[in-house]
Amino acid sequence: MKAHRADGLSAFFEPASVAVFGSLNDSAFAMGNAFGVIKNMLGFGFKGKIYPINPSGGETMGIKAYTNISEVGDPVDLAMLLIPPRAVPAVLNQCALKGIRFVIVGTENFAEASHEGAALQKEVVDIARRNGTRVLGPNTLGVLNPSNGLITTPYPLYYDSVMKGGISYCSQSGLLSFGAYPLKDKGYPISKMCDFGNKCDVNEVDLLNYLAEDPDTRVISMHLEDIKDGHAFMEAARKAIVKKPVLIFKTGRSEAGAKAAASHTGSLAGHDEIYESAFKQVGAIRLNSLQEFWEIPRVFSSQPLPKGNRFAVIVGSGGSGVIAVDAATEVGLTPATFTASTVRKLARLSPRLVNNPVDIGPVSVTASDPFSVFEEVIPTVLDDGNVDCATIGCMGIPESVEIFRRLMPHLSDISKPITIFLWGTDLQIMEESARQLEALGIPTYLDLETAVKALGIAVAYSKIKLRAEQ
Amino acid sequence: MKAHRADGLSAFFEPASVAVFGSLNDSAFAMGNAFGVIKNMLGFGFKGKIYPINPSGGETMGIKAYTNISEVGDPVDLAMLLIPPRAVPAVLNQCALKGIRFVIVGTENFAEASHEGAALQKEVVDIARRNGTRVLGPNTLGVLNPSNGLITTPYPLYYDSVMKGGISYCSQSGLLSFGAYPLKDKGYPISKMCDFGNKCDVNEVDLLNYLAEDPDTRVISMHLEDIKDGHAFMEAARKAIVKKPVLIFKTGRSEAGAKAAASHTGSLAGHDEIYESAFKQVGAIRLNSLQEFWEIPRVFSSQPLPKGNRFAVIVGSGGSGVIAVDAATEVGLTPATFTASTVRKLARLSPRLVNNPVDIGPVSVTASDPFSVFEEVIPTVLDDGNVDCATIGCMGIPESVEIFRRLMPHLSDISKPITIFLWGTDLQIMEESARQLEALGIPTYLDLETAVKALGIAVAYSKIKLRAEQ
Repeated sequence: MKAHRADGLSAFFEPASVAVFGSLNDSAFAMGNAFGVIKNMLGFGFKGKIYPINPSGGETMGIKAYTNISEVGDPVDLAMLLIPPRAVPAVLNQCALKGIRFVIVGTENFAEASHEGAALQKEVVDIARRNGTRVLGPNTLGVLNPSNGLITTPYPLYYDSVMKGGISYCSQSGLLSFGAYPLKDKGYPISKMCDFGNKCDVNEVDLLNYLAEDPDTRVISMHLEDIKDGHAFMEAARKAIVKKPVLIFKTGRSEAGAKAAASHTGSLAGHDEIYESAFKQVGAIRLNSLQEFWEIPRVFSSQPLPKGNRFAVIVGSGGSGVIAVDAATEVGLTPATFTASTVRKLARLSPRLVNNPVDIGPVSVTASDPFSVFEEVIPTVLDDGNVDCATIGCMGIPESVEIFRRLMPHLSDISKPITIFLWGTDLQIMEESARQLEALGIPTYLDLETAVKALGIAVAYSKIKLRAEQ
Repeated sequence: MKAHRADGLSAFFEPASVAVFGSLNDSAFAMGNAFGVIKNMLGFGFKGKIYPINPSGGETMGIKAYTNISEVGDPVDLAMLLIPPRAVPAVLNQCALKGIRFVIVGTENFAEASHEGAALQKEVVDIARRNGTRVLGPNTLGVLNPSNGLITTPYPLYYDSVMKGGISYCSQSGLLSFGAYPLKDKGYPISKMCDFGNKCDVNEVDLLNYLAEDPDTRVISMHLEDIKDGHAFMEAARKAIVKKPVLIFKTGRSEAGAKAAASHTGSLAGHDEIYESAFKQVGAIRLNSLQEFWEIPRVFSSQPLPKGNRFAVIVGSGGSGVIAVDAATEVGLTPATFTASTVRKLARLSPRLVNNPVDIGPVSVTASDPFSVFEEVIPTVLDDGNVDCATIGCMGIPESVEIFRRLMPHLSDISKPITIFLWGTDLQIMEESARQLEALGIPTYLDLETAVKALGIAVAYSKIKLRAEQ
């Protein structure tokens, strides 16, 4: 019997030991390259034991390799298989004999490739069911857990760490995984990541159940091309949504896209209206682009939920205030009307600061210290009882980071969600400033409309959660 | 009488000499800082003469300063004023006496700030009309022309050059100008840029007329909060559209946004439906976000217009193919059906490459040279008579740049528009690759859906142009 408990997947993310099957030759092609996986795990400082498994034995990067999993004396929690498809069934049985109940089949050329591959995938599932093994994949880069340095992709990465945080990303494609996104450079706060691959066994329902209970996960962002079992998905999503937001980027929306999905992972995408209505019914929030998949969840990782939809904008340029208000209106936010007390406080700084959007530009250009104006206006606006959330637009330079560093204790006390939009003329300085603000705990965007939309989705989730709790 | 000829604005972009009025003190606040403008112009290698004008005289950065414009012996084409608002009327008259017919009033605190400012702005207009002077502004960073190094912003920039090319950007806010965007790092190909400011005289109609005739401008991307004269705008847009695409990012779409626009530049934004219908009628294409304002025009700078809407996708990941097809469908593109000949050629490489989207991933991971597969597939697909345009998704690394460098002669012969989507795990390498591909002449995006949408808008413009020519 396979484990159906919600915590049944923890070995995929928190194994004390991992066996990696495949070539130990540095130059092997990626999806057969155990060397690549081990190199990445060492780079990320994986905290458990690593057992390279290859018929040649020997050692790799100072780690003893075993010719067969049966030779390993200690127990092993997880296996990552990067071996030819036809070798997988036998190795699955060997893993079961060794007591390994969690296996990632990274290798490609299963159901997504051919009828022969589909038959082999069915055989994999049968063996797994018989042995009580859970299988992630095939055709997957596997998982990432920055807390223990677990990373199972064999592809060379240009980074060796990511920021720990509250977002769990799952995807049905390597393109939406740690294998194809500059996670370290972006500085996004990550809890767990999982590439589903062909979903022969472990799928979106398992991950929803697991991540709903995972205390480190504050938000789930999930890319799906199909859903294997609609009823199970809806039940799992309903339960998860009471605890944390479930954001879904469902692709294959168009008929042509659904056809493309079928040839990608063998998915039967089905009519989009059915998905749309199911998501609405359970309270899963739909994302509409790659950019939203990556960027929207960040607002939930560090920010409190908004108590309402009254929105303030503080910017250094009037033009961006107008754009922010347009974007806010489109996602259900309403521009806040400041209280008389706030207006008085702002008017003391300048009569031109009393409206929402607060355009600091004209005041700051003549101020002796332009940044001090920002530093006074931000807490004044956020303290206002009529304001539920705010987007702050400022220049992406170290001085802006310092303002927020000084304001952080006060902002934490106020406990209202904010997002930052950074603009500037030097991209690297902007990106470095964004990373530093993200590390301070403020979701920071180089795209204004996305910064605003994130708050709109936070408001939408607040309402969904309230309704679900009633 | 002011000049109404279409080429009447050339002195704003191609002056042989510029007088810059304002403080020559490095530490003066920006909007009063002639020093900053001159420093930027020297940094950009301005090819004309610079005349600093300041009552103290002396010299700045090795350039002789004059206490009054009347002291300058040679003729002066353009003046940039960064002097207090109340000083502007007198200086405008001095400029007219000196024969300067083109003046940028950078200074703020005119109509956007107060009733007093509005009265002063009216006075400026009256003087300009009397003297036959054209005025850009007030409340503007002015203009940028990379061809001659003209740049009039007083703000410190973190760059001193931008790529020359076919895009002209105009905006009603400094945020959407060279003063607040990392233009050099992005590598976008620029013809002219203009910040309208308060549009007391020179406005969107003048710029449309000028840029329509400008041989270096292949596309006009315009941000507007309002339109001063609807009929004149429609007439100018209609004429421009026959020659080049006119893309409009009109903000203040929502009622709340329109209210915010009114307090930003004193604009009366009016109902959005009126704008929407006017744009449709004349064939101006509407953009919907800051990101689109900057990124969509690039497809027109270097690419030929598509002959139809049949779209091909070539990607290294099946997941991205599905997303691209969804995005394509939403912007009116249809997935192309390859001819039998193309299918045969692709099948020779691998039977898994014969569908559109062409997913190279599974083939390239086992190929001895994965990049060679891309290099064979791209021209095969683009040569297909059933394909009008294509988006190619590949990893943002130097090897990808080299593929396109080798393919460029062939791609130029095929003469169909393409866009590139780059993914990767190191942001700086991705950005450097994007710049290099952009410099090769291929619009390159780090956002997949925008890469696809650009082609959709190219198709839309092709149809508009055809209709306009009939």
